[in-house]
Amino acid sequence: MDATNQNTAPAPARPQLQRAACIGGGVIGGGWVARFLLAGIDVAVFDPHPEAERIVGEVLANARAAYGRLTDAPLPDEGRLSFHETLEAAVAEADWIQESVPERIELKRKVLAQIDAAARPDALIGSSTSGLLPSDLQEGLRHPGRFFVAHPYNPVYLLPLVEIVGGIGTAPETVEDAVRLLEPTGMKGVPIAREIDAFVGDRLLEALWREALWLIKDGICDVETLDDVIRYSFGMRWAQMGLFQTYRIAGGEAGMRHFLGQFGPALKWPWTKLTDVVDLDDQLVDRIAAQSDAQNEGLSIRRLEQIRDDNLVGILQALKSGDGGKGWGAGRLLAEFEAGLRRRAAEADEKVDGDQNEGLKPLAVRVSPAWIDYNGHMTEHRYLQVLGDATDHVLQAIGADLAYVKAGASYYTVESHLRHLGEAKLGDTLTVTSRIVSFDDKRLHLFHRLTRAQDGAEVATGEHMLLHVDRASGKASPAPAAILSRVAALASGDAPDGEDDGIGRAIRPAAGPDRMALAQGPGATPSTRR
Amino acid sequence: MDATNQNTAPAPARPQLQRAACIGGGVIGGGWVARFLLAGIDVAVFDPHPEAERIVGEVLANARAAYGRLTDAPLPDEGRLSFHETLEAAVAEADWIQESVPERIELKRKVLAQIDAAARPDALIGSSTSGLLPSDLQEGLRHPGRFFVAHPYNPVYLLPLVEIVGGIGTAPETVEDAVRLLEPTGMKGVPIAREIDAFVGDRLLEALWREALWLIKDGICDVETLDDVIRYSFGMRWAQMGLFQTYRIAGGEAGMRHFLGQFGPALKWPWTKLTDVVDLDDQLVDRIAAQSDAQNEGLSIRRLEQIRDDNLVGILQALKSGDGGKGWGAGRLLAEFEAGLRRRAAEADEKVDGDQNEGLKPLAVRVSPAWIDYNGHMTEHRYLQVLGDATDHVLQAIGADLAYVKAGASYYTVESHLRHLGEAKLGDTLTVTSRIVSFDDKRLHLFHRLTRAQDGAEVATGEHMLLHVDRASGKASPAPAAILSRVAALASGDAPDGEDDGIGRAIRPAAGPDRMALAQGPGATPSTRR
Repeated sequence: MDATNQNTAPAPARPQLQRAACIGGGVIGGGWVARFLLAGIDVAVFDPHPEAERIVGEVLANARAAYGRLTDAPLPDEGRLSFHETLEAAVAEADWIQESVPERIELKRKVLAQIDAAARPDALIGSSTSGLLPSDLQEGLRHPGRFFVAHPYNPVYLLPLVEIVGGIGTAPETVEDAVRLLEPTGMKGVPIAREIDAFVGDRLLEALWREALWLIKDGICDVETLDDVIRYSFGMRWAQMGLFQTYRIAGGEAGMRHFLGQFGPALKWPWTKLTDVVDLDDQLVDRIAAQSDAQNEGLSIRRLEQIRDDNLVGILQALKSGDGGKGWGAGRLLAEFEAGLRRRAAEADEKVDGDQNEGLKPLAVRVSPAWIDYNGHMTEHRYLQVLGDATDHVLQAIGADLAYVKAGASYYTVESHLRHLGEAKLGDTLTVTSRIVSFDDKRLHLFHRLTRAQDGAEVATGEHMLLHVDRASGKASPAPAAILSRVAALASGDAPDGEDDGIGRAIRPAAGPDRMALAQGPGATPSTRR
Repeated sequence: MDATNQNTAPAPARPQLQRAACIGGGVIGGGWVARFLLAGIDVAVFDPHPEAERIVGEVLANARAAYGRLTDAPLPDEGRLSFHETLEAAVAEADWIQESVPERIELKRKVLAQIDAAARPDALIGSSTSGLLPSDLQEGLRHPGRFFVAHPYNPVYLLPLVEIVGGIGTAPETVEDAVRLLEPTGMKGVPIAREIDAFVGDRLLEALWREALWLIKDGICDVETLDDVIRYSFGMRWAQMGLFQTYRIAGGEAGMRHFLGQFGPALKWPWTKLTDVVDLDDQLVDRIAAQSDAQNEGLSIRRLEQIRDDNLVGILQALKSGDGGKGWGAGRLLAEFEAGLRRRAAEADEKVDGDQNEGLKPLAVRVSPAWIDYNGHMTEHRYLQVLGDATDHVLQAIGADLAYVKAGASYYTVESHLRHLGEAKLGDTLTVTSRIVSFDDKRLHLFHRLTRAQDGAEVATGEHMLLHVDRASGKASPAPAAILSRVAALASGDAPDGEDDGIGRAIRPAAGPDRMALAQGPGATPSTRR
């Protein structure tokens, strides 16, 4: 995949991101903390707010839950989280310091000057401001060249966008470094060519927000109607293609120029002139607050957050299958993030294992909301998905990985036997242990056992026969000696007690004291087919 | 589910939608044609454009492909599509006439007067206008009460929103009827309380578009950056929650009022004053066209449409799992649409079958892009998904349907045996035939065979043992006589030739002339475990 190319090792002299500091730990600051920690980066926090630890903890809990559903890729061990008494202590060791204090320029300038004085001179300093100019913020810093705006969107742990905006004093390589350092966190640093109040995203949001306030104030619609208009139509277009690419399609084969020709005159129509700033007086605030209460009756903010995060996870996963499986937009970014996680996990495994063989390691898999049926149980075919992941895990361990498949051969599953022994529910973690039961030069016979991590209860077993196939001819072919020797090494060891119950079994037809036979035709005498 | 309540039978006197007429068959008109046809509604088209049939045909092909991936629910037989030489012939029989001619008020008025004169007096007349006022359009009609704006969004066959806007002369029940009649097409009619130029959606779009043009003109960013800013951030928020619900979450426990208090002052900041209308001169058109070409290098409009439709299908499916499986936003609408399809198919089945039993009918399933792995083949667990759907189909046929499950009992799969005999690829249609192999009062033993529809090649088989379970106790329990008699009736008939190959089989361990035994430990002598 091209994806992996974007994560090649940087030149050694450029900054690395192993330790971050977050100054300010509200919803945005806490979101940064979660992004960094879940990417394996240590985070030092400074926030004088008495409840800072609780708030950060809540955002982090949401983020952990979302990541558990977002990806099956091997997340690194979480970075170390520490809270500090002083700003100076928090920033002292950091490679990247992210400022997320309230949006008041005097406060931000004061905090940034403190950071600048206490940080290593080569550390990067980003500000989460959603509207203040970087040139105004960097005035008076001793090292302004390493300062920039890094403006994220809520929820920071799921939405990838970070607008990267440099000021007059920002060194060009700072912007490049910021984009590069964010990559392993799954974020997308988007450099903005010129600084402007509110940058690009909030300018667009503000324009639409202003128009929305007029529509509510003038009684054209209520907030629920307005939200429905967005989410049943262009909201879904914008989740994947944005504005200009969507309009390119609308222009059709005639092209963008033709489309603009059509659209242009509309900009002069009377309805484009409603551009005054709406007066957000008490009456309008009351109306919006009341309509918002009605729209969200029975839905707490906590529940809305869960629903939003589930939806975002689902949209990200859907976009990961986009463009014929290559991934599209934020889904492509997720695929690249996962490729990076897998590559780093494989490298770490190699370092730890050396030439030693430690046998097949168990897989841990979390039951995702998308896997649940109307009974609240894990849907049947998701068991085979987990078993398939376990089979892939064994194939990687014997060297039949993606690179091997690309080189022209692969193991294909030809037969599977599943037994359902218990129920998996939302949020359960399943442990999958795997064993090579038998093999020859073409065949590989696997057995997987799924147990619930919290109580060890057996949930399902899978027995699978795989065939080694030459992909060009499509026929079975002997596996090479390198693979077979790893198979032989891993196939050692006795089966655990009771495991033979699940192996080599056929489905037995219905029979017993309460047997009713197969009818040979309507009204036929009970008899037996098998 | 609440979903089905929304489709209860209307009072008999209200209009029905069985025959539609589409006047104008471009991208929007063709999208309406596709929505109606795929919902089983006959459509008569009038469009004097010489290529109208080709253009409608292309939109329809896209829509059919998208629906094939969107849902496994039983789509009704497509409505009958006819093209007519005169407007009068097209509208004569129609229950709903949708006008989608170019956006020029004189032209629309002339066409609407013609429609009004030729249509049945009780037929509804909707206009696809994206900005003209319904009061202006209905002036001079003989029956203005049945006229309204029904403004859809491209692609009309996937995006559910229709803004329903009445004018001064529109009867209130017309708006209600329009919303109700659109329901079985999967669309969401959203009534707008007061008419206003450009209604709600295009007013919001226009505000953002105007701001976007300034950002490009002033060189703040290029079109790709602007699209990235949207799709990596608030685009994904808006696909599911819109504007106000998103901000409600941003306000946190402090609520909407608190949020507005914070946001309000920003409306007076300098950056909100950039509200002039941009001059879309040649230079700006050239810049946007060139940047758009660069953004979409190598992607034809046709390819972009496919990518967009795949993404929208994926987003809709993701949202269908939202809110703990109840469905959220456009995904909830999709769940309701599917529930309606299933209910109507079941009703139609009952009508056709009467008391006769025609045996188990084969299922037809289309391989979706989301089911394809990096080899271009259908992913392993998707076979079990198709087999699970086939099992559900059998359970419905024996009366163990969703209502039965709700009443307290269900069949659970306890064991499955899959054989992979061929490969399924993107776009293949699979035919699944099912057979009851054996049963007793608690057990149900099924065999499914998957063949490729185009050449009859066998792709996979599934053998499954199900147990009848009392849901309260979680224990096996005898099925009631009503179910067992249907099982007995459907279990009649001999197995087709060769089928026994796939039944009652166990996975055989690797063995043969080229056998390599299981190693008992590293370097152990070859020997045999089983």
